[in-house]
Amino acid sequence: MDGTDLVDRKSGETDGETSPQPEALSDVLRRGLVFSEACPSREILKHLTSRWGVLVLLALLEGMHRYSSLRRKIGGVSEKMLAQTLQQLEADGFLTRTSLPVVPPHVEYQLTELGREAAERVRVLADWIEINMPRILEGQQKKSD
Amino acid sequence: MDGTDLVDRKSGETDGETSPQPEALSDVLRRGLVFSEACPSREILKHLTSRWGVLVLLALLEGMHRYSSLRRKIGGVSEKMLAQTLQQLEADGFLTRTSLPVVPPHVEYQLTELGREAAERVRVLADWIEINMPRILEGQQKKSD
Repeated sequence: MDGTDLVDRKSGETDGETSPQPEALSDVLRRGLVFSEACPSREILKHLTSRWGVLVLLALLEGMHRYSSLRRKIGGVSEKMLAQTLQQLEADGFLTRTSLPVVPPHVEYQLTELGREAAERVRVLADWIEINMPRILEGQQKKSD
Repeated sequence: MDGTDLVDRKSGETDGETSPQPEALSDVLRRGLVFSEACPSREILKHLTSRWGVLVLLALLEGMHRYSSLRRKIGGVSEKMLAQTLQQLEADGFLTRTSLPVVPPHVEYQLTELGREAAERVRVLADWIEINMPRILEGQQKKSD
């Protein structure tokens, strides 16, 4: 689906119901949109949760970064993968790329409003992981006992 | 880090401060834990946000699933990738695998409490994507005009 389903539904086009309940988001998911290969939302989910995409979003939540500063910050990322990740997130409209006319030339990356909103959700998950690492590690250790 | 830092900090072992502020989660992230290659939290983040991991977590949020039902639900996943994803999430303690002594034999997967908590955070992101697909697609179209 392209998201318009949801909008139509919310505008109250369900005949015969006087006060239709707004559809719960979990119901939207239950219909299995993101599970369908054909749905563009799955492609977006893939970009936002890609190995390096997650880390780029978290880094840019702290503010504008130059390419070189992202590269330093995100341990282990290759030139190629970082460039590809930035290009993908830019094409999705989650960040802007500004090439500055200075010598030596450099490029700045910044989240768009849409990107900031998405990145906040990614941060909720990352924060949960950080704070729950003791529980997670304990569970992992139990298994290897 | 292994997460114990954070716990020690919260227990108030900071000498000389009468009412230490709990550290903001965004500050924890700003210290760059998840950005470090060496940090186990990054490995967990990778598992939870892997292409198929995300969809497995969302499916299991709806309740227990048999392997065959997950395979049907998650469009496009191969036997090999689904098995590998389930094994990884089980090793992390996010789901349980129960092999039932029936004929023909079958296997059931269910989220643990830890897995349910993580999956809820993944759902927040997936829900945001579904509801914002019109905005995202509009941004993408603008670029290709």
